[in-house]
Amino acid sequence: MGHCSIRNWGEVMHVLILGAAGMVGRKLVQQLSAVKTIGGREITAMTLFDMVDAQKPEAAWPVSIRSGDIAERSDIDSLLVHKPDVIFHLAGVVSGEAEQDFDKGYRVNLDGARALFEAIRAQDYRPRVVFSSSIAVFGGPYPEIIDDAFLAAPMTSYGTQKAAVELLVSDYSRRNIFDGISIRLPSVVIRPGRPNKAASSFFSGILREPLNGEEAILPVSRNVRHWMASPKSAAGFLIHAAGLDTTKLGGRRALTMPGISVTVGEMIDALGRVAGADRAALIREEPDEMIIKIVGGWPHNFDAARALQLGFSPEVSIDDIIRDYIADELGGRLG
Amino acid sequence: MGHCSIRNWGEVMHVLILGAAGMVGRKLVQQLSAVKTIGGREITAMTLFDMVDAQKPEAAWPVSIRSGDIAERSDIDSLLVHKPDVIFHLAGVVSGEAEQDFDKGYRVNLDGARALFEAIRAQDYRPRVVFSSSIAVFGGPYPEIIDDAFLAAPMTSYGTQKAAVELLVSDYSRRNIFDGISIRLPSVVIRPGRPNKAASSFFSGILREPLNGEEAILPVSRNVRHWMASPKSAAGFLIHAAGLDTTKLGGRRALTMPGISVTVGEMIDALGRVAGADRAALIREEPDEMIIKIVGGWPHNFDAARALQLGFSPEVSIDDIIRDYIADELGGRLG
Repeated sequence: MGHCSIRNWGEVMHVLILGAAGMVGRKLVQQLSAVKTIGGREITAMTLFDMVDAQKPEAAWPVSIRSGDIAERSDIDSLLVHKPDVIFHLAGVVSGEAEQDFDKGYRVNLDGARALFEAIRAQDYRPRVVFSSSIAVFGGPYPEIIDDAFLAAPMTSYGTQKAAVELLVSDYSRRNIFDGISIRLPSVVIRPGRPNKAASSFFSGILREPLNGEEAILPVSRNVRHWMASPKSAAGFLIHAAGLDTTKLGGRRALTMPGISVTVGEMIDALGRVAGADRAALIREEPDEMIIKIVGGWPHNFDAARALQLGFSPEVSIDDIIRDYIADELGGRLG
Repeated sequence: MGHCSIRNWGEVMHVLILGAAGMVGRKLVQQLSAVKTIGGREITAMTLFDMVDAQKPEAAWPVSIRSGDIAERSDIDSLLVHKPDVIFHLAGVVSGEAEQDFDKGYRVNLDGARALFEAIRAQDYRPRVVFSSSIAVFGGPYPEIIDDAFLAAPMTSYGTQKAAVELLVSDYSRRNIFDGISIRLPSVVIRPGRPNKAASSFFSGILREPLNGEEAILPVSRNVRHWMASPKSAAGFLIHAAGLDTTKLGGRRALTMPGISVTVGEMIDALGRVAGADRAALIREEPDEMIIKIVGGWPHNFDAARALQLGFSPEVSIDDIIRDYIADELGGRLG
C-alpha cells in the first residue's frame, strides 16, 4: 500500500504536525481527532513532533509521538521517510525569544523551515505544507484597514523569519517541490495558562483571569484595538488550509486570516455580558508606558478578503471566544 | 589611524564592492572614481571583489582587486578584516541562472548575503551596506501604478532571494548589526554587449543594435510598457544610497528606485529622434508568444514617492538614456 499525495485520492492520509505540543498545535490535534478528515479525506495516521513529547490524543488512527530539533536535518529526514501527505509546520521559537536570542531565532525559525523544505525535496514527492505564519510580518505605518496587497515590513526578528519563510513556501510551491500555503494567524486570544512576559499577554489575561475569579491588570487604554482569533478558529484555519484547492491561490500563497478587530473596551463589555459584571469588575487599570508603546505599533484591522473568498470561516464575536474558553478550558463553568 | 564608520567622520573611507566585475558594478566603480566622494566624504581606499578579477579603475586611491566565492565565509571574512566603511553588495547569480539552478541560486543569492551579514556581525562594527535588489521582488496582479506599500510577491527564485535578503537587511539594520539599505533597481537599459537569452534582452537590443548599425528583433507589440533606468542612473542610485541619512527610512529599508515607464513605441520614437529614422528602421517586428507572455507578467509602472523624497534623482527620459549610451559606450559616435 503506497502513500499518495493529497492530489491523488487514495486510501492513505498521513498527517505530520511539527510543533504539536504548542498551544495552537494541541488545539489542532484535538480538532483533527474530532473532525477525522482533511479536505474530505479520512485521516489514517498521524505523527506529532515537537521538542518535547506531545500529549497522545484520543484518535481513531495510529499516532506516533516523536521529539527532536526542527533545525536538525536528520531529525526531519526521519519524519519524512513515510512521506506524510499533509505537513503542518507550527514549530518555532516565539517572538520574545527570537528577539532575545538572534542566532536561535534564525536557526530554528528560518533554517529549520528550510531544512524541512529541503528534506521534502530530497524525498521527491509533493505533500501539502501548511505553514503557520503571523501578522507579525507587518509593520507600520499602516492604513486604517490593511488589505491583502499590503507589504510585509516586519518590526521583529520573529516577523522577519516568518516573512522569509512565506517567500520560501511560495517559491518551493511554484517549483512544484511541495504544495504550500502560509496562514497568517491573528493574535490568539484567549490563551490558556498563566500570564507571561509577552507585551500581548494582557489581551488574554483581562478575560482569562476574571473568568478564573482572579484580578487582571489592564496596562493600556480601553480604546486600544487588536486583531484576534480564538485558539479554536486558529486551528480551524490551518485545517481548512490543508484541504484547500491551492490552484485558486495563484502566486500568492500567504493569506491573512479573518480574525476580528476588537477594542479592549469591547472585550470588557463582552466579559460582562457573558460572565457577569462582577467578573468584569476584576480588571484593574494600571497604564504601562512601555506596553502602550509596543502595542501601539501593532496592526489592528485587516480586510481579509482573499481568505474569506477561499472559504476560511471568520471569527464571529468576542462573546463567542469567551464562551468557547469557558466550554473548552473551564469545563463549562466559571472558575 | 583607525577605521571609522560612515557615521563617525574621519580620515578613512574604505569602499568594498562585491560583484564589481558585473555590468552595474563596473559602472559603479567608474562613477565612484570620477565623483571621488560618498555622502561628502572622500574615498581613501577601494576593494573590488568578484568571481573573476575586476578591471582596475583610474582612481586617486589604492585599489585592491580580489576574487573568490561570495558564499564562502572565509573569502568574505578576509575582505572584512580592514572593516570597510561602505559595502556595496551587488554579487549574485542572475535571474535566468537562479531559475535553472535552484541550489546555486539559493546558495549564492541568499546564503551568500547571509554569510556577508554574519561576517560583518563577527567584526563587530557598523558599516553602511547597500544591497542591490530588483523589481523582480514584485509579482502580479498589479495595480495600474505600484506604490511603496505594495507587497513583494516574487514570481521567480531570483526575486524570492532578493526579497528574502531585503528582509534580512532590514532586520540586521534594526538590530544595529549594520546600517543597510536595499535598492530595487529598475530593468537596466541600455545594457552594453551582445544580446543574451534573457526574455528582457530585446529591451536593450532594439536600441543597442540599431545604434551599432545592426538589425534588431522586436518580439512584442509597440504598446508594451517597461520600467527602466540607465546603467548610469543605476550606479547613481547606489552611490546616493551609500551616503543617505538612513534615519529617514524608518523600518522600511527597501526602496523602489525612480526609473521611467516607457512603451516600446516610445523607445523606437526616441531612437529615431536621437539617431535618425534609418536607425529606427533597423527594428524588425517578429512576435514571440513566449516572450509576450513572460514580459506581460512584469510590473511596468511605479510611483517611487519615497525614493524621490529621499533625494534619489529620477531617470529623465529615454532620449537621455540613448544619448548616454552613445557617449559612454560608442565614444560619442554612432556605430
